[in-house]
Amino acid sequence: MQLGKASVKFEEPPVILSMASIVGKKEGEGPLGKMFDMVEQDDMFGADTWEKAESTLQKQTADLAIEKGDIRRKDIRYLFAGDLLGQLIATSFGTVDLEIPLFGLFGACSTMGEALNLGSMAIAGGFADKVMAMASSHFATAEKQFRFPLGYGNQRPYSSSWTVTGCGSVVLGKHKKEGIAAITGITTGRMVDMGIRDSMNMGAAMAPSAFHTIQQNFDDFQVDESYYDKIITGDLGKVGRTILLDFMKNKGHNLESVHTDCGLEIFDSETQDTHAGGSGCGCSASVLCSYILPKVQSGEWKRVLFVPTGALLSTVSFNEGETIPGIAHGVVIEHIGN
Amino acid sequence: MQLGKASVKFEEPPVILSMASIVGKKEGEGPLGKMFDMVEQDDMFGADTWEKAESTLQKQTADLAIEKGDIRRKDIRYLFAGDLLGQLIATSFGTVDLEIPLFGLFGACSTMGEALNLGSMAIAGGFADKVMAMASSHFATAEKQFRFPLGYGNQRPYSSSWTVTGCGSVVLGKHKKEGIAAITGITTGRMVDMGIRDSMNMGAAMAPSAFHTIQQNFDDFQVDESYYDKIITGDLGKVGRTILLDFMKNKGHNLESVHTDCGLEIFDSETQDTHAGGSGCGCSASVLCSYILPKVQSGEWKRVLFVPTGALLSTVSFNEGETIPGIAHGVVIEHIGN
Repeated sequence: MQLGKASVKFEEPPVILSMASIVGKKEGEGPLGKMFDMVEQDDMFGADTWEKAESTLQKQTADLAIEKGDIRRKDIRYLFAGDLLGQLIATSFGTVDLEIPLFGLFGACSTMGEALNLGSMAIAGGFADKVMAMASSHFATAEKQFRFPLGYGNQRPYSSSWTVTGCGSVVLGKHKKEGIAAITGITTGRMVDMGIRDSMNMGAAMAPSAFHTIQQNFDDFQVDESYYDKIITGDLGKVGRTILLDFMKNKGHNLESVHTDCGLEIFDSETQDTHAGGSGCGCSASVLCSYILPKVQSGEWKRVLFVPTGALLSTVSFNEGETIPGIAHGVVIEHIGN
Repeated sequence: MQLGKASVKFEEPPVILSMASIVGKKEGEGPLGKMFDMVEQDDMFGADTWEKAESTLQKQTADLAIEKGDIRRKDIRYLFAGDLLGQLIATSFGTVDLEIPLFGLFGACSTMGEALNLGSMAIAGGFADKVMAMASSHFATAEKQFRFPLGYGNQRPYSSSWTVTGCGSVVLGKHKKEGIAAITGITTGRMVDMGIRDSMNMGAAMAPSAFHTIQQNFDDFQVDESYYDKIITGDLGKVGRTILLDFMKNKGHNLESVHTDCGLEIFDSETQDTHAGGSGCGCSASVLCSYILPKVQSGEWKRVLFVPTGALLSTVSFNEGETIPGIAHGVVIEHIGN
C-alpha cells in the first residue's frame, strides 16, 4: 500500500462483487434508461410519503445488489450509506430491515465517493470480507427539503440542476473471477469554499472541490489526464463542467475529451427540461452502477477516475446568507484481467 | 486482529494522542464543570447565528486538541466528524479552515462512536498515522432544528433531555509513551426500531440499540459486565438507563453498578432543570474528552466500554408519524502500561 498526501493506492485492491441501480420514470426516459436494472414508474414507490418512497428505493436497491451478486445478506459486514435528507432519514428508515452494521454518511452529492473511500479501506485493511456502499436521492424529497413545494410549479434558472430519483448500491469484496472492476486507489476530498452563494447554481459551488480533488489525485499518483480513459465527476452539470475545465486548463491540463459528468449523462437536457443536468447523490451512484462499472468490467474502459461532488448547504445556512462550500471524493476504478 | 460478528479487536490498538473539550455556560455549571478544557460564557461563541456559533465551537475544539497534543495540523490525515444539524452544516462550515480530508458522518448522538470506529480502523489498517474524531451539538441549534423556537418558552416533559452545548475532539495515532488510553476494540451498531414515536422521550427510543450493541460486544468478545470497569452510554438519561438495565437484566446481566451515562453525568438534573439528562452528540463527545479519557489515561479505570447512542429522527419523519429508530456504536478503551 502506498500513501500520497490525501490518497491511498491499494496493493490488493477491493473488487466490485455486485451492483444495482434503480431509478424513477424520468431517469428511465433519459439516455441511460435501458442501462438501469429497474425503472420504477411510480415515483411514490408504493409508499404514502416521498420520504418513505426514498427509503423503499434504498431497500429495493440494496436487496437487488445482494440478489444479483448471489450474496448472503448476513455476509455483508458493514453498510456505508447516505442520502441528502436532514438526519439521513431515507437511509435510517430504509436500512433497518437489512440488519447490517451501519456507518451513516453525509457528503451531500459526494456520498457515493465517501462510501467507496471508506468501504474500500475496510476491505483492504482486513476489517471485512464484504461491505456495501450505497447512496440515494429523490427529486421530490430534495425539492421539499431544499427548495420550494412542488405545487408552486416554480420556475428554475438554467444554471439549476434536476435532482435524480435514483439509488446505486455496490457490494465490495476481496476476490472475483471474471469481469473484474477493482478500486485501486482513493483520493479523499476536503471542504473547499470559494464563496458561491447561489443555491440554483450548485455546479459552480462544486467545481472548485472537483478541481482540488482531481489535482490532488494527479499529484499523489504522479499522473495526469492521460492516465485515465475517463474522468467522471458527479453532478457538476453544464456550468460546473465549464468551470472545472477552465480551472484545469489554467494548470496545464486539458480535460475536454477525457471528462464527463454523471449529471450530463443521465438526462437529455434539450428534451427533458433538466437545465444544467442531473444532481443528487443518487445521480452519481446510479450512473456508476449502470453505466460506468459495466464498461470497466467489460474492459471498454481500463481505468476511470470517479469523482462524486457535493455542495454543502441547508435551507438554514442558505437563508442565513452563508456560502456553499463543496467537497469531492475520488475513486480510481480499474479493469483487471484481459 | 480478531473479528467478531460486528466487532474488531485490534492487535496494535490506536492510542489517544490528544483530546479537547469545550462546552457552554450551563455545562460548565454542572458536576463536570472543572474537567472541561474550556467553558465558553457566550453561547453565541462570538458569532451572529446559532449555527455559526456551533461551527466556531467545532473549530476551536479541533484547534485546541491539536495544540494540546503539540501536533502539526497537516500531519492529521483524516477528519471524521459530524453534528446533529440537517446537512451537517456545523461541521461543513466549522472544518473548512482545517484543510483536512473530511469524512462527514451522521449517526445522531452516536456520532462520536461512529467517528472512533472509523478513525481507529483507519489507523489500525495502516491508512493514516494520525486522524481526528470530533462531534458537536448546541442547545439552541438543536432546539431550532428539532423542536420549538426558544422564544416560546415551551414546557418540557420529564422524559425529555437537554441538548448539550459542547464539542469533543480526539486525535488518534499509533504511538504514545505515557498516560496511554488505547482503543482496543470496536463494536459497530445497526439500526434498531422498537416502535417508539415520542420525540420527547429519546432515551426510550435509544435504549434498545444500546442494549443490542452491548450484548453484541459481550458475545463477540466472549465477556460480560465484569470485564469492564465502566460501561458508559451516550445520552440515555434516566428513562433510557432504566430500560437498558431492565433489558440487560432479562439476559442475566446486572449493569446497576458498572453502568453510567454521559447524559446523567454532565448535568445535575435536580438543580439544573434538565429533566432526564443531557443529550446531543456533543454530550458523549465532551464527556469522553473531559471525564472518561483522563480516568483511563491515569489508570483509575483500566477498561471502559463507551457506547454513544443515537436516535434517528427528523422533523419531517416525526411529523409524518414515523417511529424513532436508534443506533449505538461501541468503543473499548483501555489503559495500557502500569
